Amino acid sequence: MNVTDPPDPPAPSAGPAPGAPVRSGIPEHGRIPKYYAVKTRIAALLDELGEGGPLPAERELAARFEVSRETLRQALRELLLEGRLRRMGRGTVVAGPKLEQPLALASYTEGVRRQGRRPGRDLIGLDRLDAPAALAPDLGVEPGAPVWHMERVLLADDERVGLESTYIAVARAPRLAAEFAPDSSFYGYLREHLGIRFGDADERLETVLATPREALLIGTPPALPMLLIHRVSRDTEGRPLERVRSLYRGDRFSFTTHLRGEGGSPGGP
Amino acid sequence: MNVTDPPDPPAPSAGPAPGAPVRSGIPEHGRIPKYYAVKTRIAALLDELGEGGPLPAERELAARFEVSRETLRQALRELLLEGRLRRMGRGTVVAGPKLEQPLALASYTEGVRRQGRRPGRDLIGLDRLDAPAALAPDLGVEPGAPVWHMERVLLADDERVGLESTYIAVARAPRLAAEFAPDSSFYGYLREHLGIRFGDADERLETVLATPREALLIGTPPALPMLLIHRVSRDTEGRPLERVRSLYRGDRFSFTTHLRGEGGSPGGP
Repeated sequence: MNVTDPPDPPAPSAGPAPGAPVRSGIPEHGRIPKYYAVKTRIAALLDELGEGGPLPAERELAARFEVSRETLRQALRELLLEGRLRRMGRGTVVAGPKLEQPLALASYTEGVRRQGRRPGRDLIGLDRLDAPAALAPDLGVEPGAPVWHMERVLLADDERVGLESTYIAVARAPRLAAEFAPDSSFYGYLREHLGIRFGDADERLETVLATPREALLIGTPPALPMLLIHRVSRDTEGRPLERVRSLYRGDRFSFTTHLRGEGGSPGGP
Repeated sequence: MNVTDPPDPPAPSAGPAPGAPVRSGIPEHGRIPKYYAVKTRIAALLDELGEGGPLPAERELAARFEVSRETLRQALRELLLEGRLRRMGRGTVVAGPKLEQPLALASYTEGVRRQGRRPGRDLIGLDRLDAPAALAPDLGVEPGAPVWHMERVLLADDERVGLESTYIAVARAPRLAAEFAPDSSFYGYLREHLGIRFGDADERLETVLATPREALLIGTPPALPMLLIHRVSRDTEGRPLERVRSLYRGDRFSFTTHLRGEGGSPGGP
């Protein structure tokens, strides 16, 4: 495989100091893609500019780094996808650090609030449908039983950052459509209105590309890498509760977890 | 924002049944990008072909779906990035499901073995360096103290699937370079040779684009979305142990976790 960019001469090496925990991306065979060398230099410039600092115009950057507009754009595109840059109105600014969301039973609302951001949700739709066979067991119902599907855009300080799709049996929350304020915490509603408490959940995380519909709803570039979390949860009595598909902007979120040694684990105490 | 593809007429809607837990990506305003409609139809074809089935030739697919080679390639590129397709030799085949790795203190080796795959590691480098100030506290040493940096490519059944970068104080494992077999489990070595057991760890997960160097080492397309896990761990006595940067192919891995209600959590019992 050839990752070099043959028409361009090799650019001088750049990147973090040797031994820095996050290592530079320069291949060791000597040649580095031109766009990547520029990306490394722009990343250093972004550190100087600081969060919220406006990115200089493309033609100015192309001139400063002596590259074509096309090469420059490839570098900027990656910095955008990775969340180092952010579009703001018609300009582009240096992005802040990614939000850190704990992997925990606590809700999105609680996680965002803990970071001093204001959580919000915009309702896309609340539908009642017949449980497909693949979904029914996770909700503790027979196939064909009525289930709610609620889809909401996740907000942090009015910025659209994710999309959440929740399925729950109508039998568990019969008055959902009438009672629930869709911009509030669903978990808060279950707890306070229905006395339902979360017992445990299985989660699976992966990275996926935003579909055109998702990109449109969240306001991201199409095919932005996203973090997708599938959750199946049960109440404190072990009864199936909900199935959730949560999609978070990969350029805006990271997830944290604390691992402890367990009795059954070879690494445990 | 416009996610449509104006030169092409709108294609017929396609995708999973309404209410399917993983929803279709078709925007609701009526127009869908041509490449995305083709992608949905190819995805259905891949289900029919089954894992390992060879993908028909590009010109055949372009003719069947009545699209340009360029539109077809955009669809295939996304299916490759998402791990639905896999390059094999000179051809492309239907990929199997992503490997599911538990988020646990257990090592990569143990996680892969549990799924019936054969784990392996190729040593890229084992260097001794002076601890940079940003790294020293995580390893429980003063800045400038000698630390090991070990970099290994992660393998599953001889397929390169990730890249792991481990930092540990030389004082913790003085004979690492002489004693450790680099294709074996590092955690097994710490346990069996040094009697060190893992107590707990903090992890942070995010999605990043593979750098050219990483893409070269792992054998992925440059800029493939990856899952990056930062780990800082301590032994059973609470002393700092290691810092690890693990990069996994986003098209080949997902991570699972089991969440329990905790005393302090509002969602807990």
